[in-house]
Amino acid sequence: MRDIFHQELKQLGYDLESMAAQVATAMERASAALRDGDLIVAEQVIDADERINDLQRDIDDLCIMLLVRQQPVASDLRHVISALRMAQTLERQGDLARHVATIARGRYPGPPVPEPVMSHLLTMADHAVRAGQDVARLIATQDLELARRIQTADAEMDRLHRESFQMILDPANELSRQQVVDAVLMGRFLERFGDHSTSVARRVTYLVSGHHLGSHDRAPEEEDAQR
Amino acid sequence: MRDIFHQELKQLGYDLESMAAQVATAMERASAALRDGDLIVAEQVIDADERINDLQRDIDDLCIMLLVRQQPVASDLRHVISALRMAQTLERQGDLARHVATIARGRYPGPPVPEPVMSHLLTMADHAVRAGQDVARLIATQDLELARRIQTADAEMDRLHRESFQMILDPANELSRQQVVDAVLMGRFLERFGDHSTSVARRVTYLVSGHHLGSHDRAPEEEDAQR
Repeated sequence: MRDIFHQELKQLGYDLESMAAQVATAMERASAALRDGDLIVAEQVIDADERINDLQRDIDDLCIMLLVRQQPVASDLRHVISALRMAQTLERQGDLARHVATIARGRYPGPPVPEPVMSHLLTMADHAVRAGQDVARLIATQDLELARRIQTADAEMDRLHRESFQMILDPANELSRQQVVDAVLMGRFLERFGDHSTSVARRVTYLVSGHHLGSHDRAPEEEDAQR
Repeated sequence: MRDIFHQELKQLGYDLESMAAQVATAMERASAALRDGDLIVAEQVIDADERINDLQRDIDDLCIMLLVRQQPVASDLRHVISALRMAQTLERQGDLARHVATIARGRYPGPPVPEPVMSHLLTMADHAVRAGQDVARLIATQDLELARRIQTADAEMDRLHRESFQMILDPANELSRQQVVDAVLMGRFLERFGDHSTSVARRVTYLVSGHHLGSHDRAPEEEDAQR
């Protein structure tokens, strides 16, 4: 019984890894679609989000089934509850990648916003891509040093996000209202993507270091930018 | 043992009710702060969010404790898992109310945006207030008719959100860039608040109607506006 359970826990880990890898790919493509004004790639991201959503449903089902059938305790219980929450976070990240792709598609064939704001948003997108890749690796490796780096990198993302508002408000940068709208939303989506990566990093840290789940294993909301 | 368990489940229900009531109050006050440019009320919302976050931690702790000690099955397990997720959703709604209050405070003593955009955003805020109040009542009453109304009302919120973009982009409405930024963010925060209310309504519906949790008890992201 316990052997089957641990096999199933392992399967849960693989599913999460696969989901995180798909989310990372979605953000890579969304970023490429922005950079190159590539309509096909933007469409791919939008279509692929359905599969990410399906994966979350699968992981949810597996977790509930494990809870019902195996009634895990202690660290096994922590793993199952964390998997439930990480899947929810990853699903949300998939949505945010889709939102970025939707903006890229909406302004095709031009870039959504002119320079230098565009370059700044692309830098944020690069950070999001790296965060997504790091999260996928973190789930596979459980490397706490990597978890720490993800958290540090998110502080930089928050700084870039604050800077984006300065650039958007700077009258020296010529922007139409549509461009202001798009820049604000893209900045927000990318910054939230980073917050969610940090959330996963924190969950893995608490799982691996054995910290109590209830009090600390929180949603990314704490890190949410204050504006 | 089971009696204690059901007392604790009841306590969990009370805690969720209390949390939902505090979230509703936060959105009422954030909306009032916007409408009246009231700095004190805005500050109250921002301060009170800490208590909402604490409540989530308490509910998390109680849920994990219940899972560990009582190893609930079937409908009891569904209740505990749903409580975990609803607390997370409510916590996020508290953050969104705080974000709205922060915008109100940031532009004090004037309104953040001029008419007619301001009136439109206040209409959205009214919808958010009603959604928050309905969710608090729903958690207390488990009234499925109310759950249905919350979902319907959110479709109207999404329509108002789309309309807000038309108003923001309409050159007839004179707006500074800062006002465009604030209007976009406020619209987004209010619309997300509505999404989360719908998420709670869906969870309660599945709990009460006994639907399988795994496949359907999803985060609000599905309803997320596509822009």
